[in-house]
Amino acid sequence: MDQKLTIVKVGGKVLESPETLHDFLEDFSALPGPKVLVHGGGRSATTMAKRLGIETKMVEGRRITDEDMLEVVTMVYGGLVNKTVVAGLQAMDINAMGITGADLNLIKAHKRTGSDVDYGFVGDVDEVNISPVIPLLKQGIVPVIAPLTHDGQGTLLNTNADTIASSLAVGFSEVMETRLMFCFEKPGVLINPDDDTSVIPFLNRELFNMYRNEGIISEGMVPKLENGFASLGNGVAEVVITNTEGLSVPGSGTTLGE
Amino acid sequence: MDQKLTIVKVGGKVLESPETLHDFLEDFSALPGPKVLVHGGGRSATTMAKRLGIETKMVEGRRITDEDMLEVVTMVYGGLVNKTVVAGLQAMDINAMGITGADLNLIKAHKRTGSDVDYGFVGDVDEVNISPVIPLLKQGIVPVIAPLTHDGQGTLLNTNADTIASSLAVGFSEVMETRLMFCFEKPGVLINPDDDTSVIPFLNRELFNMYRNEGIISEGMVPKLENGFASLGNGVAEVVITNTEGLSVPGSGTTLGE
Repeated sequence: MDQKLTIVKVGGKVLESPETLHDFLEDFSALPGPKVLVHGGGRSATTMAKRLGIETKMVEGRRITDEDMLEVVTMVYGGLVNKTVVAGLQAMDINAMGITGADLNLIKAHKRTGSDVDYGFVGDVDEVNISPVIPLLKQGIVPVIAPLTHDGQGTLLNTNADTIASSLAVGFSEVMETRLMFCFEKPGVLINPDDDTSVIPFLNRELFNMYRNEGIISEGMVPKLENGFASLGNGVAEVVITNTEGLSVPGSGTTLGE
Repeated sequence: MDQKLTIVKVGGKVLESPETLHDFLEDFSALPGPKVLVHGGGRSATTMAKRLGIETKMVEGRRITDEDMLEVVTMVYGGLVNKTVVAGLQAMDINAMGITGADLNLIKAHKRTGSDVDYGFVGDVDEVNISPVIPLLKQGIVPVIAPLTHDGQGTLLNTNADTIASSLAVGFSEVMETRLMFCFEKPGVLINPDDDTSVIPFLNRELFNMYRNEGIISEGMVPKLENGFASLGNGVAEVVITNTEGLSVPGSGTTLGE
């Protein structure tokens, strides 16, 4: 395809309320050209787990996924969040199609091993098969991807949505120019987390390491940026971290570069 | 497409245990030619609702779907059951793609009105848009459809899986020869529900009305057969009601005819 593809990953509080989700979907639907949406849903999964009496355990921002938790994330990510987003986009005349990494064999993964922590049914990506998706994009269909993968032997795996987004971005980059946008509740990577005007407009590896050593960039932002830099190093044309408003304003947010 | 399409609807106890589901998926995956799977999941939804403290109310075999129950069926049908089936088929080298009627704008419906009973978020089918699915079938992809539709205004609706299957069968019949198979735990429509050898091999409208008046055909079988006859009257080539074993044995089960 000649047109530039935009992959947007949305997560965090944006998915939490019908209002912020609606605003996001409006801005997303206005993006020109072919596009793919990858969503998270961790907060909804935690809420649903609690309602079912299942305890949520996190290690370094990653969810420990035992059999009960796998059932919860399959329901919440693959069902509740994914279909709510799809129905919302359909109402905006976007022909959305919600799938997981198991559908179309889109993303194959293996259960994480070799870590001191037993993460359970958490998948590390092995391969991305985007070929069945290309004809769909050509028809104007917008894939909406839930953060689940499979091992090819019948087991679903919970995979971080940022990782899904960057893996897909790398896969699509082989056939078309692709930009990757991480969209969350903050306007970008902030110097001061309490000051939304303190956006760092540009980050390369060197600056990232500096801010990280100084403790300015920490927690969930670290794997997000690692994913972003890995994508850039693997052919993705552009990586931006921004909020809903920043989606449609060129130069908004934090742009990653070499 | 030149090849005959088979649409299989699976429900009931077949979906209940990993073993019966696995056996069914093996027989389904062996069916020659393009195929579509439509699944139910009512029992799993009832179980999940109970775990969440949500009461299940049924009227004439139809689930009353208030907002809480809509959340449950979206999670269970669109997430848990759909993705378990997809991962199971992928393990059998079937490139399955699990979607609902909201995805690809496949099935548009409206909230049921005009009944004495308020069914809540239950959808009656308005239109079926199969055109985006045809290229997928040509690629050997097998759509797996969860029994949810949408109203085009952002609301998901719960729609009976038999109705979904027959609506899709009618839609596909316009472009290719289509047969519809209802697969459940019994070998067909039975004269005596306790005797699996009492299968009625052939039913037309006249025989159906006779058995119905005699009380031999009752409850859930009535809407299933109504759906089947409606499909036949709208271009579907063949309608069969059978169990997993009957899927691959020509002449098994109950065949509907004019």
